Amino acid sequence: MPYINIRVTREGVTPEQKLQLIEGATNLLSRILNKHPSTTFVIIDEVDTDNWGLAGENITSLRRREAKER
Amino acid sequence: MPYINIRVTREGVTPEQKLQLIEGATNLLSRILNKHPSTTFVIIDEVDTDNWGLAGENITSLRRREAKER
Amino acid sequence: MPYINIRVTREGVTPEQKLQLIEGATNLLSRILNKHPSTTFVIIDEVDTDNWGLAGENITSLRRREAKER
Amino acid sequence: MPYINIRVTREGVTPEQKLQLIEGATNLLSRILNKHPSTTFVIIDEVDTDNWGLAGENITSLRRREAKER
Amino acid sequence: MPYINIRVTREGVTPEQKLQLIEGATNLLSRILNKHPSTTFVIIDEVDTDNWGLAGENITSLRRREAKER
Amino acid sequence: MPYINIRVTREGVTPEQKLQLIEGATNLLSRILNKHPSTTFVIIDEVDTDNWGLAGENITSLRRREAKER
Repeated sequence: MPYINIRVTREGVTPEQKLQLIEGATNLLSRILNKHPSTTFVIIDEVDTDNWGLAGENITSLRRREAKER
Repeated sequence: MPYINIRVTREGVTPEQKLQLIEGATNLLSRILNKHPSTTFVIIDEVDTDNWGLAGENITSLRRREAKER
Repeated sequence: MPYINIRVTREGVTPEQKLQLIEGATNLLSRILNKHPSTTFVIIDEVDTDNWGLAGENITSLRRREAKER
Repeated sequence: MPYINIRVTREGVTPEQKLQLIEGATNLLSRILNKHPSTTFVIIDEVDTDNWGLAGENITSLRRREAKER
Repeated sequence: MPYINIRVTREGVTPEQKLQLIEGATNLLSRILNKHPSTTFVIIDEVDTDNWGLAGENITSLRRREAKER
Repeated sequence: MPYINIRVTREGVTPEQKLQLIEGATNLLSRILNKHPSTTFVIIDEVDTDNWGLAGENITSLRRREAKER
């Protein structure tokens, strides 16, 4: 009965990609720990780039800088 | 000073129902563990059905199948 | 398929009390939102009193002060 | 590599304030525990006032009462 | 920069299995969402079977019943 | 009424350092968002280095490699 919480930035993750994350995480727990998919929860949280910080800056700024550098 | 986090799918939970969850969870911790309501936090997270997986599928698909089977 | 996470300080919660929290939280979600107990998760986290802060102090200090005041 | 999750009510926190929380939390972990900012995550969750309970009531009601008392 | 939190019951997960979960989850996020492993966090929480409830009972009881049924 | 959850690896954080994290996080929320310390929760989770992954490896391995490189 695992619980898997995946937190990513809200940057256009599609329903299909979310489903692939759900399938992949469920399979991983089944394969490594023999956990039943029927009681495996996967919850995906999408977080605004203003609300996620890395290295003391927000991801909004990081993405802007990455775009410039290209 | 308990912290209770309730995560449910975003499927039309009303403000009144949320209040009942808050009251019920606060009372539960008071009744069983004698915790003060004044420092009991309850946070309800509503999660899109595309973002919640059970048994390797998302809840969007599960709900669609349930509707068909009725 | 709710997920309920209850965080309390580690101060001698008994297995019987934990079970009552599990039962109570499961019943609450069933009663208010009609959620199936069979896919309701309750996870209780016990946190050391040194690791829990309220009002800028840890609960270890708070408990010591409460004991003195009695 | 710390992970810091800050949960506050959704009541008009500005991008600038969020950035100050990110900077402040990152600095705190660097200063006290010598953790590298480059692998410090800060995630801010904003929670609707209907979804946050304190003392058995929601923050929506608390704010309404505070406004009246002024 | 994803954050993945895997919560499982504390029932003898080995360091090797934990590493496989870390590798698998990191690869999953890289494969599906093209996320850099260098900023992918995976945190595994092991929860005592008395502290995890499913269907209104704790996992300690569930395991005992499963053992009997064999 | 903020809730701040700080997750760090379990590598000898002292009670005094934990208190400084609690004070610092409480002050941060008070200073930036004018939140009352009296309803500010800080919870510190210490996670075993086997249970924390970064870049697809666990922190146990990372620390071993860092020690060698010195």
